[in-house]
Amino acid sequence: MSIHPTAIVSTKAILGENVTVGPFTIIHDNVEIADNVVIESHCELGVTNQRTDDRPLVVGCNSHIRSHSVLYACSTFDSNFVTGHRVTIRENTIAGKNFQVGTLGDIQGDCIIGDYVRFHSNVHIGQQSTIGNFVWVFPYVVLTNDPHPPSNIMQGVTVEDFAVIATMSVVLPGVKIAGGGLIAAHSSVNRDTKENTIYAGSPAKAVGETSKIRLKDGSRQPAYPWPKHFKRGYPEEAIRILESIASDYE
Amino acid sequence: MSIHPTAIVSTKAILGENVTVGPFTIIHDNVEIADNVVIESHCELGVTNQRTDDRPLVVGCNSHIRSHSVLYACSTFDSNFVTGHRVTIRENTIAGKNFQVGTLGDIQGDCIIGDYVRFHSNVHIGQQSTIGNFVWVFPYVVLTNDPHPPSNIMQGVTVEDFAVIATMSVVLPGVKIAGGGLIAAHSSVNRDTKENTIYAGSPAKAVGETSKIRLKDGSRQPAYPWPKHFKRGYPEEAIRILESIASDYE
Amino acid sequence: MSIHPTAIVSTKAILGENVTVGPFTIIHDNVEIADNVVIESHCELGVTNQRTDDRPLVVGCNSHIRSHSVLYACSTFDSNFVTGHRVTIRENTIAGKNFQVGTLGDIQGDCIIGDYVRFHSNVHIGQQSTIGNFVWVFPYVVLTNDPHPPSNIMQGVTVEDFAVIATMSVVLPGVKIAGGGLIAAHSSVNRDTKENTIYAGSPAKAVGETSKIRLKDGSRQPAYPWPKHFKRGYPEEAIRILESIASDYE
Ligand SMILES: CC(=O)SCCNC(=O)CCNC(=O)[C@H](O)C(C)(C)COP(=O)(O)OP(=O)(O)OC[C@H]1O[C@@H](n2cnc3c(N)ncnc32)[C@H](O)[C@@H]1OP(=O)(O)O
Ligand SMILES: CC(=O)SCCNC(=O)CCNC(=O)[C@H](O)C(C)(C)COP(=O)(O)OP(=O)(O)OC[C@H]1O[C@@H](n2cnc3c(N)ncnc32)[C@H](O)[C@@H]1OP(=O)(O)O
Ligand SMILES: CC(=O)SCCNC(=O)CCNC(=O)[C@H](O)C(C)(C)COP(=O)(O)OP(=O)(O)OC[C@H]1O[C@@H](n2cnc3c(N)ncnc32)[C@H](O)[C@@H]1OP(=O)(O)O
Repeated sequence: MSIHPTAIVSTKAILGENVTVGPFTIIHDNVEIADNVVIESHCELGVTNQRTDDRPLVVGCNSHIRSHSVLYACSTFDSNFVTGHRVTIRENTIAGKNFQVGTLGDIQGDCIIGDYVRFHSNVHIGQQSTIGNFVWVFPYVVLTNDPHPPSNIMQGVTVEDFAVIATMSVVLPGVKIAGGGLIAAHSSVNRDTKENTIYAGSPAKAVGETSKIRLKDGSRQPAYPWPKHFKRGYPEEAIRILESIASDYE
Repeated sequence: MSIHPTAIVSTKAILGENVTVGPFTIIHDNVEIADNVVIESHCELGVTNQRTDDRPLVVGCNSHIRSHSVLYACSTFDSNFVTGHRVTIRENTIAGKNFQVGTLGDIQGDCIIGDYVRFHSNVHIGQQSTIGNFVWVFPYVVLTNDPHPPSNIMQGVTVEDFAVIATMSVVLPGVKIAGGGLIAAHSSVNRDTKENTIYAGSPAKAVGETSKIRLKDGSRQPAYPWPKHFKRGYPEEAIRILESIASDYE
Repeated sequence: MSIHPTAIVSTKAILGENVTVGPFTIIHDNVEIADNVVIESHCELGVTNQRTDDRPLVVGCNSHIRSHSVLYACSTFDSNFVTGHRVTIRENTIAGKNFQVGTLGDIQGDCIIGDYVRFHSNVHIGQQSTIGNFVWVFPYVVLTNDPHPPSNIMQGVTVEDFAVIATMSVVLPGVKIAGGGLIAAHSSVNRDTKENTIYAGSPAKAVGETSKIRLKDGSRQPAYPWPKHFKRGYPEEAIRILESIASDYE
């Protein structure tokens, strides 16, 4: 346990073994941090507002929250949760194992996120978003929820397993991005998509099967489904899942 | 009055009744904060640079500045000014009543913003922007000002009352977004627009009247002008204005 | 030398003459700061991770790092390095003289940046990017590197001297933006471009020579090459270069 003397940690907060809390970080009452977790400097954990109740912020074991991050109460993160710098995550977010969210990430709360999901930098996840397992979201992607703003109607976006949304794309409210799909960079998707299909443009149209894209490493092997060639950074049990997926496509 | 012992508040700063200042927040000399204001942690208020003079930063009553925000000197915010986290607002910004700017908002200064204006997360407002009343700007929208960058020519954008700019759109320098208009998501607007009209695409074209869009709550009522159905979060006097607008359209 | 008492500065860090370190800023061991440098509040300098070694973070003389910025170890910045607020720069970044990066800038590391380069707010520079001299990048521009994400293949973007990338554009992996070129706002570039040419659209197409764009100050002079009319904020030796470039085009 190493809590920096300038950190402000509530005595009601529950911290596990080998937890590090950096300088100028604030940890409020309703926070439960498991073993082997690093919370870097200038963070604020367990923030409350008019929508939070007394459910705690829960951070699973082996997690790493980088500097300047703000996590609200009433959210639960499983083991190996890793953030970049300046990440903001609002209340009622539930995320599975090995969730990674890059610098400047902004998750608005009331979201369900599966296992082994990776968001790159500067991603905005609107309320009511539902994200499956092994989903990839790249920089400057926004998932919206108000179909005719401003209104009281919220239609969250759904992104299914293994889908990939490339840089600077918008997913319009209520749209479902099907499993294994690829949304090309700089696109806006206003209709549900089909599995394993590339969508490009604004509004996005189907431009072909994902397997048509070849790896640019000289192997000419298909770049998708990506589990066939990409397993970097995943733990053992995730790699077994990726390998079973890959064999399904043989 | 509750100022956290780790906050650094200048003795020259003028604070009203019931002002809260969070941990690790810095308040410089030239700052005037009215009654019932909350300034959260890790903020810096009253920042000066080569363009500021001795005019103060003024924050109206009942305001709430969330954590990690930076507000420069020589700007004035009326009552009920509310920010998300990590908001940056440069010098010579003047904003009216109930101004709300979401997390990561970046206002570059030399801007005039009306009453009851709401910016969602990650909005970038270029210098010389002029924003009317009851304007809505959604995530990742940028208002520009240099028509052929880099140059010394600045043509600010104007957004008129009740206009709505949807997610990830750019408004080109000098463009006027007419009252009641709707800029579709993922668009770029390089010409002045007409009132109560939808513009979509890059470069954006008119695609119809805003009233053609129906509420997706089963009522089939027009979603615009939005004051006819949306009054959430507005104070009493604003609701009276919205209701008079709505009746004009009967 | 003025180090705020709340700053945490490692005794191993090497600070030059007339260095200011603001409140709540952390400076780790492996940091070398030259003379006449201002490091504002809430920053963290010299951050290490599994990719850094013992090479220091070097900040050249006359630099100004604004608040809430995070600079990793193993990067080198020449003299007159200026940042906005909340800038994040990862390891193995090398930047030349007078490098300016605006608020919310996110440089992912393993990048080479030339002299007199200016990034506006909220720019995302992917790993393996190579930026020439006198390059301008405007808000919400992303330089990517994975051609079919996720994969282990990284093809960095190259931006040549005097090129300008306007607001909210994406440069696809491995693309080279030729010298003196202009990428219009809200575009995505998936092919190499020609010198002194405007590219617009998604995917971007050539729409004419940059010299066809006229200054909107009534002079009707060509707006490009921009060194012919724009020298604001550059030091003497840079202005001599700009003037020689301008005369080449006579
Ligand atoms: C870590 C980082 O920061 S990197 C971020 C992750 N990487 C990215 O975001 C880049 C992802 N790459 C893309 O989105 C690419 O556009 C891909 C993979 C979808 C396709 O790229 P490629 O296979 O190289 O093919 P290409 O660029 O020629 O596009 C294929 C087709 O889709 C079309 N297309 C691609 N993008 C668009 C678009 N935004 N709008 C309309 N059509 C498009 C192209 O016109 C092309 O049609 P054509 O074959 O008739 O010319
Ligand atoms: C809180 C949050 O984070 S949510 C953020 C706020 N919400 C948003 O940003 C989403 C706002 N929604 C939009 O911008 C929608 O595109 C709207 C409201 C303009 C139109 O949506 P809808 O009424 O569902 O109609 P639809 O998506 O079919 O588009 C209507 C027409 O405009 C066209 N269009 C819409 N967007 C574009 C675009 N970016 N480029 C070109 N054409 C477009 C469509 O092609 C369509 O033409 P069509 O009828 O001939 O097919
Ligand atoms: C400090 C700040 O924050 S300001 C940020 C810096 N400033 C900016 O980012 C704005 C830069 N401006 C642009 O990108 C402009 O589009 C320019 C300079 C490329 C061209 O602008 P202008 O000279 O005014 O001409 P215009 O807007 O009519 O566009 C010229 C042509 O390019 C086309 N074009 C421009 N943008 C696009 C686009 N995104 N997609 C497709 N075509 C486009 C236009 O349709 C037009 O074709 P046309 O002449 O057949 O109508």
